[in-house]
Amino acid sequence: MSVRVLVPLAAGFEEIEAVTVIDVLRRAGAEVVVAGLEAGPVKASRGVVVVPDTTIAAALEQSYDAVVLPGGMPGATHLAADPRVRTALARAREQGRVIGAICAAPAVVLGALGYLDGKHATCHPSFASQLALHGAGRVVIDGNLVTSQGPGTALEFALELVRVLMGGEKADQVAKPMIVE
Amino acid sequence: MSVRVLVPLAAGFEEIEAVTVIDVLRRAGAEVVVAGLEAGPVKASRGVVVVPDTTIAAALEQSYDAVVLPGGMPGATHLAADPRVRTALARAREQGRVIGAICAAPAVVLGALGYLDGKHATCHPSFASQLALHGAGRVVIDGNLVTSQGPGTALEFALELVRVLMGGEKADQVAKPMIVE
Repeated sequence: MSVRVLVPLAAGFEEIEAVTVIDVLRRAGAEVVVAGLEAGPVKASRGVVVVPDTTIAAALEQSYDAVVLPGGMPGATHLAADPRVRTALARAREQGRVIGAICAAPAVVLGALGYLDGKHATCHPSFASQLALHGAGRVVIDGNLVTSQGPGTALEFALELVRVLMGGEKADQVAKPMIVE
Repeated sequence: MSVRVLVPLAAGFEEIEAVTVIDVLRRAGAEVVVAGLEAGPVKASRGVVVVPDTTIAAALEQSYDAVVLPGGMPGATHLAADPRVRTALARAREQGRVIGAICAAPAVVLGALGYLDGKHATCHPSFASQLALHGAGRVVIDGNLVTSQGPGTALEFALELVRVLMGGEKADQVAKPMIVE
């Protein structure tokens, strides 16, 4: 059975971060479900318009091996405020699944919900003051929690998610034809 | 007047490459026009669905400082076969504008049209045999021609386009908050 990953998209998501995670995980063979908070296209922070696969309401009917949150503002704020996103995160935590977040999302979503208490995590430096960071780095892994800093770290973040979910060999196989440095 | 950039999207475009170019150039203040070959959403090579700003037919009514081609297959093949894309490229070459291409696009589009004859250029290694490469590297610049290798070089490619079109200071300003290594 393939690894299943939920990527919720809210208006104002950072498009490089979301698309890099979706693309890289699909290259690795994961089944990635891109879920909008409402039905219809979602406009990202720099104006790219993406049509999700489904809605978060419909997506909650299934289970996932990972929930990954793109950053971007106000996208991260919308994710934090959405009860369905909170449900997906709560289930992932209860079941010991992987939770990933990048850029604004670690602080604005996970930090605000208390998911980072006592954890090693990172986020975009502009949000670091809101977060008592116990770790630092471009990508930080603490158990099932994978966090990262911004669009420039999105590819490393996505490959780390592949490594955590599917192993290092798979991550290397995906990285090579992408011409990762 | 802001720098204007045309990014044509064909079914099967590589979504990291297209979205990274669009996002980074917009962060730099460029007016980026995302143009589908036909009206409506376009499905990328790993299933991300993007709604373009306009069609290539409508986009040709305006002029551009740069035309940038994402890779991805069969996206690059569709771009090469499209007479409107060829018109946009021919105008850019005649007027000495910037032409950018990444991954499959340098070989499959520009190489096939003879735009790389005698030029220093690069492309995805899997297409290099189709192309008598006079240069090599993750991003290669020869005058107004900017070429690059794949999704893993898309951010460097996009920042080089900013540098060529708007200067190194602007490129540095854009790179810093993106957390580029």
